[in-house]
Amino acid sequence: MTYSCFDVQIDNNIAHIILNRPEKRNSMIRSFWDELPEIVKDIDDNAKARVIVISSTGPHFTSGLDVSSFVKAESDDPEEQRAARIRAGSDFYATVKNMQDSFTSLEACRVPVIAAIQGGCIGGGVDLITACDMRYATEDAFITIFETNIGMTADVGTFPRITKLIADGVARELAYTGRRMLAVEAKDVGLINNVYADQEEMMKNVMAVASEIASKAPLAITGCKRMMNYSRDHTVADSLDYIAIWNASMLQREEIFEAMKANAEKRPGDFVDLPAVKKSIG
Amino acid sequence: MTYSCFDVQIDNNIAHIILNRPEKRNSMIRSFWDELPEIVKDIDDNAKARVIVISSTGPHFTSGLDVSSFVKAESDDPEEQRAARIRAGSDFYATVKNMQDSFTSLEACRVPVIAAIQGGCIGGGVDLITACDMRYATEDAFITIFETNIGMTADVGTFPRITKLIADGVARELAYTGRRMLAVEAKDVGLINNVYADQEEMMKNVMAVASEIASKAPLAITGCKRMMNYSRDHTVADSLDYIAIWNASMLQREEIFEAMKANAEKRPGDFVDLPAVKKSIG
Amino acid sequence: MTYSCFDVQIDNNIAHIILNRPEKRNSMIRSFWDELPEIVKDIDDNAKARVIVISSTGPHFTSGLDVSSFVKAESDDPEEQRAARIRAGSDFYATVKNMQDSFTSLEACRVPVIAAIQGGCIGGGVDLITACDMRYATEDAFITIFETNIGMTADVGTFPRITKLIADGVARELAYTGRRMLAVEAKDVGLINNVYADQEEMMKNVMAVASEIASKAPLAITGCKRMMNYSRDHTVADSLDYIAIWNASMLQREEIFEAMKANAEKRPGDFVDLPAVKKSIG
Amino acid sequence: MTYSCFDVQIDNNIAHIILNRPEKRNSMIRSFWDELPEIVKDIDDNAKARVIVISSTGPHFTSGLDVSSFVKAESDDPEEQRAARIRAGSDFYATVKNMQDSFTSLEACRVPVIAAIQGGCIGGGVDLITACDMRYATEDAFITIFETNIGMTADVGTFPRITKLIADGVARELAYTGRRMLAVEAKDVGLINNVYADQEEMMKNVMAVASEIASKAPLAITGCKRMMNYSRDHTVADSLDYIAIWNASMLQREEIFEAMKANAEKRPGDFVDLPAVKKSIG
Amino acid sequence: MTYSCFDVQIDNNIAHIILNRPEKRNSMIRSFWDELPEIVKDIDDNAKARVIVISSTGPHFTSGLDVSSFVKAESDDPEEQRAARIRAGSDFYATVKNMQDSFTSLEACRVPVIAAIQGGCIGGGVDLITACDMRYATEDAFITIFETNIGMTADVGTFPRITKLIADGVARELAYTGRRMLAVEAKDVGLINNVYADQEEMMKNVMAVASEIASKAPLAITGCKRMMNYSRDHTVADSLDYIAIWNASMLQREEIFEAMKANAEKRPGDFVDLPAVKKSIG
Amino acid sequence: MTYSCFDVQIDNNIAHIILNRPEKRNSMIRSFWDELPEIVKDIDDNAKARVIVISSTGPHFTSGLDVSSFVKAESDDPEEQRAARIRAGSDFYATVKNMQDSFTSLEACRVPVIAAIQGGCIGGGVDLITACDMRYATEDAFITIFETNIGMTADVGTFPRITKLIADGVARELAYTGRRMLAVEAKDVGLINNVYADQEEMMKNVMAVASEIASKAPLAITGCKRMMNYSRDHTVADSLDYIAIWNASMLQREEIFEAMKANAEKRPGDFVDLPAVKKSIG
Repeated sequence: MTYSCFDVQIDNNIAHIILNRPEKRNSMIRSFWDELPEIVKDIDDNAKARVIVISSTGPHFTSGLDVSSFVKAESDDPEEQRAARIRAGSDFYATVKNMQDSFTSLEACRVPVIAAIQGGCIGGGVDLITACDMRYATEDAFITIFETNIGMTADVGTFPRITKLIADGVARELAYTGRRMLAVEAKDVGLINNVYADQEEMMKNVMAVASEIASKAPLAITGCKRMMNYSRDHTVADSLDYIAIWNASMLQREEIFEAMKANAEKRPGDFVDLPAVKKSIG
Repeated sequence: MTYSCFDVQIDNNIAHIILNRPEKRNSMIRSFWDELPEIVKDIDDNAKARVIVISSTGPHFTSGLDVSSFVKAESDDPEEQRAARIRAGSDFYATVKNMQDSFTSLEACRVPVIAAIQGGCIGGGVDLITACDMRYATEDAFITIFETNIGMTADVGTFPRITKLIADGVARELAYTGRRMLAVEAKDVGLINNVYADQEEMMKNVMAVASEIASKAPLAITGCKRMMNYSRDHTVADSLDYIAIWNASMLQREEIFEAMKANAEKRPGDFVDLPAVKKSIG
Repeated sequence: MTYSCFDVQIDNNIAHIILNRPEKRNSMIRSFWDELPEIVKDIDDNAKARVIVISSTGPHFTSGLDVSSFVKAESDDPEEQRAARIRAGSDFYATVKNMQDSFTSLEACRVPVIAAIQGGCIGGGVDLITACDMRYATEDAFITIFETNIGMTADVGTFPRITKLIADGVARELAYTGRRMLAVEAKDVGLINNVYADQEEMMKNVMAVASEIASKAPLAITGCKRMMNYSRDHTVADSLDYIAIWNASMLQREEIFEAMKANAEKRPGDFVDLPAVKKSIG
Repeated sequence: MTYSCFDVQIDNNIAHIILNRPEKRNSMIRSFWDELPEIVKDIDDNAKARVIVISSTGPHFTSGLDVSSFVKAESDDPEEQRAARIRAGSDFYATVKNMQDSFTSLEACRVPVIAAIQGGCIGGGVDLITACDMRYATEDAFITIFETNIGMTADVGTFPRITKLIADGVARELAYTGRRMLAVEAKDVGLINNVYADQEEMMKNVMAVASEIASKAPLAITGCKRMMNYSRDHTVADSLDYIAIWNASMLQREEIFEAMKANAEKRPGDFVDLPAVKKSIG
Repeated sequence: MTYSCFDVQIDNNIAHIILNRPEKRNSMIRSFWDELPEIVKDIDDNAKARVIVISSTGPHFTSGLDVSSFVKAESDDPEEQRAARIRAGSDFYATVKNMQDSFTSLEACRVPVIAAIQGGCIGGGVDLITACDMRYATEDAFITIFETNIGMTADVGTFPRITKLIADGVARELAYTGRRMLAVEAKDVGLINNVYADQEEMMKNVMAVASEIASKAPLAITGCKRMMNYSRDHTVADSLDYIAIWNASMLQREEIFEAMKANAEKRPGDFVDLPAVKKSIG
Repeated sequence: MTYSCFDVQIDNNIAHIILNRPEKRNSMIRSFWDELPEIVKDIDDNAKARVIVISSTGPHFTSGLDVSSFVKAESDDPEEQRAARIRAGSDFYATVKNMQDSFTSLEACRVPVIAAIQGGCIGGGVDLITACDMRYATEDAFITIFETNIGMTADVGTFPRITKLIADGVARELAYTGRRMLAVEAKDVGLINNVYADQEEMMKNVMAVASEIASKAPLAITGCKRMMNYSRDHTVADSLDYIAIWNASMLQREEIFEAMKANAEKRPGDFVDLPAVKKSIG
């Protein structure tokens, strides 16, 4: 399949999703929001990969939302105008929820998602990368909660997630001032896992991390992701109970024996992939 | 569209979903679980109706899950057998979640859903009706958490919801003994809104309730449903705050004026339907 | 002090707040929302009574919000118009929060609040009585979530609280249809504690209940109220812990001995009132 | 083993715990609080029964806490007096937590617990029965939150649990007035499952319910109890997820087949008991 | 207005609150706790500024609570002594809640609050600064949870908030040892946003940050603050939903267009201030 | 008492628990899981120390779970085999819960627990140290969520707790890759409080921290620990309320005066120990 905003490559159990509109600074146009969850769902439901890498092209990761592509033509029909007025709130609410769902697909899918960031990661870009599991960056990368600078409060996921990712006081400074935070500072505060000299260096290292993850038993990895998501939003007591009952069905002796044997024999393990998730129950 | 387990009629802003396999006691076969959310989503996303009524045919509302239709053929291939063994837990988890989502579509859709129950409402039937907004029944109707009688713990929604619907001690008795609860007792404990002599009488009254609901401003009704769902799962303080911010965009003067005027003129109000929810963001 | 919407009488440790605009069906005008919390706060902060009774006058308890008194004159100044447009959402949000706070004062005050309801308890009236501790009614009393009938979703407290008070399915029927529920049915579903032939009979009995409460140790009663509020919004485990640490400082041997002795001597106990709560910390 | 406050009989997978100090109105003395959880733990950890019935002897179920048995001798040593003063709060907190744990053992154990109540169920008695799964009573039974009458706020479990069991307004009336609620009213509000003419009649019926429960697959029953407890304290979404992952390991085909076969052959099922829970991990 | 513990200056939409008792090391006497929320409320309710800066004078930011000013004279009247004994717990509870509310006003107000810290920030000082949005410090600044050193557990806000601000293990070390943490270490762990050579340098930079914030659209900034507060205490799913419905009414096209235009024209935006919040509803 | 996996020394109010099987790399065999909570409970219930230090011997802190010691012999009896199959899920769940409880005893006990880590802290070792209050390490120490490398998802406490201890993205990298994190990096991300050249240096410093803690009023310290645990799992509002009511009984003037006096006189305070917690209520 081909997409208007992304290239997708799947190799060695790694799915690589690449933002491919560098000439437009990879701005998030309408199709962007539809294609991303479609791609992620396809990979996840069909167990096509054990890890997802999202990277970009050109000088900037993304300039964020393309506001112009959301402007609607207004109707001349007074009845339609009345309907539009009355529906304004519910229309807005539904649209933002849809956009949020687009990024939440990254958090909800069963495999880890890694963001590899170069240059500017602006506005909607911050919403996107905070929904990923891990973030790596080039030295020239920066992030900015740019919505503040144009009179908006970010609403596609930045605040719900960034409070769990970095120190509260730092997040507020970014939010209130709309300033740029460079990759090195972002690593310091725990937002970025590691910083590399340039895109090539970064991709080499990100792919090595991805390979490492892809070499593990998928059932173990998906359990880790589920527990990280779950623990973030629940008490310690609830999370302890949940992992106990989770592993009661998910921990599989055969995979453990294979992992131990493969370790001993210094060879890759031969693990079973996650089951495909059928749309239909039958 | 036609469905194998349901008839669907839409009239006067009321969508009527009818279980149509009375000869099989409306058992829940594979297609049942796929078709129900598809029907509900179509009605809701396209704003085809302002209220949904679910009723059934024959002597019993439903006999619940058709276990036989879930049995899988086992592979002869040892590799596939190994994969199936290792995936058993995650396969089961994914299947139950899918089935739960089928009934959660009733709770999540924007319009009220009314169940009209005759005869036996058994096993999966209880999971279904507890996900509806309101329940009406004939005198000969009964419900039973039948799973207990066949060595299972109900898992498609009964427990998460019934604790919020009826007295805890009564719910436990039903769960532990698997006994039948007749419609009259069910009304006493608040599970059933009203009991009628027979199916005809019930449908006449249920349709009157549905008409009443369909005559109100859709934006007001969907707000009520949202707040009932929200309040059930949040503290009073959180719910107060939520309805305040909800109405800041959802309460519409034009609809209020129209409602007041229509009341004064003793005519039906001319209200705007909920906006269609596009699958695509664009 | 005198109020435009209420009479207030304090006797025998019972504060009686009476809606006194029967000729206007005790509609909730602007001053209503300011005066009620002011009265409650004065009683509570100064420990002027051990229980509060709210009753009304005329054929109806209250017709609810007086919409007309909330209409604002629009400015001619384009700058002010622009500001008003931009502030519309935040203005609405702040206003509803203020109105909610008015009724939450009943829930938050340290002494029990009893509502005595005759005739119609309409719209805002339901928001009011659901914020009280207990509700008693005359036979001709009825409640209706009237907002639905005029194109609104109730937002001053009905939904956050009614889900915790009566069966979910019944609450939804009331909300979606806007129908009247008579006192007898309201008692059946647990919303009303008891129903009496007429206002006189009701007030006699309500005052007897109030006297009974006022005869107990205030510290014990305020603990009961705190725990009922707390338990409603927390898990059983959290609530168990809270009452243990609460009583570690609040349970007072002297009051227990006095209560036991008074019981034995069949005389009223001589208990210490709650401390006045100073506005200032000093 | 013998106990000072209880007789224990185990037959047909039913454990019967009987309060055996009728001459002292089964008051809760020090040993009462230690023995009850010990008995319950022994039954549960060793899977000695599939259901527990708690009944009492004499005219009253229990008069509640025996306050006299908690009075401590005061030391003459000033150092010890100082320590006692400073530790007063933490001592009280620890003691109440211990007492709460005594009743929480009923809620936490893996099998259902049924209370059979005759005569007065007073003070601590209410804390006890609200921690049970179900409650049955004789016609002359009554409950009273008696703590209020002696200047205390109940703290061994009544408030955290009763808010989830009966209508909020009714619970508050009981709490604030300390009045008696007779069995028939208690059944009306959902606190009592059923009322019987006398103790003999009650026990016959309670034992029939217990037998019915004991005839089911223990794994299914314990799942129902776990889900009722869990759902009471969690959102619908969390509870749906939990039962899905619970059943991924707990639902056992062999038990289902045996249950179905036994039903068809109209014979009792031959089910596997819950595993004993070893104190030691090894 | 003049205050005994603070100077207040409002310029360029920045309110500057200055602790002005350096000779007493800015200790928190009785009037301190009353004046602070009064000042904050006045600024916030009347929309007098778009950001608040709190700084101090003299060598130390604050020495914390002035214990001596809380000592009460004891009455000679035995009746009053008895009342005081019985009320001791509820009195203490009410007093601490009042003190907590004093600092919570910083968190609850609609505009960001910045603390600028020099020298010692001791005991109550930590409660204060953790309730602010951001913290900046001089090199010689230090914080200490001093309560531990004088036999107390801090109770005016330190623990509820510091767990969300810095690494758990570090917070515990500070709490258990009562040791000083210097500004540089505090920046490392995310408690302090930035460290400056001296007070003058710090104030210059803090005022630059404040100016930057004051230059943004107030509606956007208050949305950021609301979402940071909300997300800290809610799940990601709840927070996503909340920001969607928040922006449905709060996001204002006119402000966005003005912001974009101002950016393009390199001039300050002409934004609408938050609405004043009237005490009265009318 | 002697233990097979630990040496225990108590001196100067410091309990020192030492892993004493260096020749087996302090692997966690069956008795390990039983002994640890037994030791902790004995210290805590009998108030034998005011702080606990856990250190180890040999080149590595611990190699984690000894899988071999958990392998069970399978029965030859078909009935027992059937029971074992059916109980597999509930057996697993119960075993993991028991193991979790072993480490939760560290979190739940009333005094702070400090881990002193040298060399490898592997698999179960991470579950252990994340349940401690603070962590100190030698330069050669490293941690690894090793379970991932052998096809498992860690389930004895790592995920529920590590999300609250370090940056989310870093925790996920550790979990998904199973890589080693050295002490210095661990300090950077806030997992380790401090790093020392070697074991001797570390123990000297850890004991100094422990001494400092042991010199404070025990009631103040236990309050700090309770509030850190509580705040981690509750909202700011709930935590503020909890500390207010906690201190209403726990804050003791006598201890404060003694602490102040001792500070002034530059001598150790003479504080009262926590009360012993009797197993029996009497």
